[in-house]
Amino acid sequence: MQLQLALDHPAALACVAHVAPEVDLIEAGTPLIKRFGLSVLASLRELAPRPTLVADAKIADGGAGEARMFYGAGADIVTVLASASSRTIAAAADVAGELGRGLVLDTVGADDPVALMDARPLPSGVTHIAVHASLDDRTRDPHAAATVFDDARRAARFGRPVVVAGGITSDTITDARNSGAAIAIVGRAIWASSDPLAAVRRLREVLSQ
Amino acid sequence: MQLQLALDHPAALACVAHVAPEVDLIEAGTPLIKRFGLSVLASLRELAPRPTLVADAKIADGGAGEARMFYGAGADIVTVLASASSRTIAAAADVAGELGRGLVLDTVGADDPVALMDARPLPSGVTHIAVHASLDDRTRDPHAAATVFDDARRAARFGRPVVVAGGITSDTITDARNSGAAIAIVGRAIWASSDPLAAVRRLREVLSQ
Repeated sequence: MQLQLALDHPAALACVAHVAPEVDLIEAGTPLIKRFGLSVLASLRELAPRPTLVADAKIADGGAGEARMFYGAGADIVTVLASASSRTIAAAADVAGELGRGLVLDTVGADDPVALMDARPLPSGVTHIAVHASLDDRTRDPHAAATVFDDARRAARFGRPVVVAGGITSDTITDARNSGAAIAIVGRAIWASSDPLAAVRRLREVLSQ
Repeated sequence: MQLQLALDHPAALACVAHVAPEVDLIEAGTPLIKRFGLSVLASLRELAPRPTLVADAKIADGGAGEARMFYGAGADIVTVLASASSRTIAAAADVAGELGRGLVLDTVGADDPVALMDARPLPSGVTHIAVHASLDDRTRDPHAAATVFDDARRAARFGRPVVVAGGITSDTITDARNSGAAIAIVGRAIWASSDPLAAVRRLREVLSQ
């Protein structure tokens, strides 16, 4: 299972250079993109030359234009909302396919991610499916974070590597791995830790058991 | 009916100082926010001191944090996706209510915006409903732009001023007004025009008839 470090807040940038060599993917989170714009991708690439660079763009419209903008700014992988118009998803997927980059279809916010996905087209340019317990759901509902692992298991049927996200910690990383997901996204449990490098190594250790 | 100028591309910035005195609201479009970050709001305020400033943030998660970030950066009105989790919408609405600012619930991407809205909570902090033909739908389906005016008419039942968006031009601004919507969003038909100020005045003239 691969580990993706999500950075949602300027404070998260402090640890990047230190922990980047130990993660597989590094993500410019949506609030960070909206705060700083595309320049944050160049900054992350400077701080973290090795990991795959993910732009959590959450494209909701203008699929081709936004996808091209984020890939052009250096993103290896971009996210598009599963709740976007089918044509928006198809347009982003066409650009991803043309450029040979990754495109994650993200179900964040959906009451039932798998039901939403059942109703969506799945163009070949979509390379990953993300099941994603929203921040607002999991801070108000302790069950939301657990549900996401069941959703990840059910999402295997879509035939794409599954990305699982939503408050994953060293206590739940085993559930993430056991869900069959290919990538676990961890944010605050790493960057808001008093020792981010130790937090990454603890996650790695659990994953290696 | 109020006129909102939407700016989605850096090229759109060229006309802002010139046309801003003639529009009611000026919008930092989603791709412009993702490209430049929050700084684009300060730049728009500098170029256009008078109109109400809208950040088309399309909040999809972290409702309180993102709403606070955009209002803090100077937005009078912020958008949240109707497809976001109910808790995300509620969290953004709480912040809007606390600060006394505007919050638009945006249905972009929905196959049936009114059906989606029927299934959503409508906290008091939500001040406007947007029915929004996505760029990807209307460039591929000539009917999508017309459907939006019917949707605007049907959306009156939600008891909020309706914002109508999606490729509106001087040919369709009358349909926008006749739909009962309170605000029409116009983008390219103004800023990509060879004479943006004349384009705004033509729209105003049709609206005053």
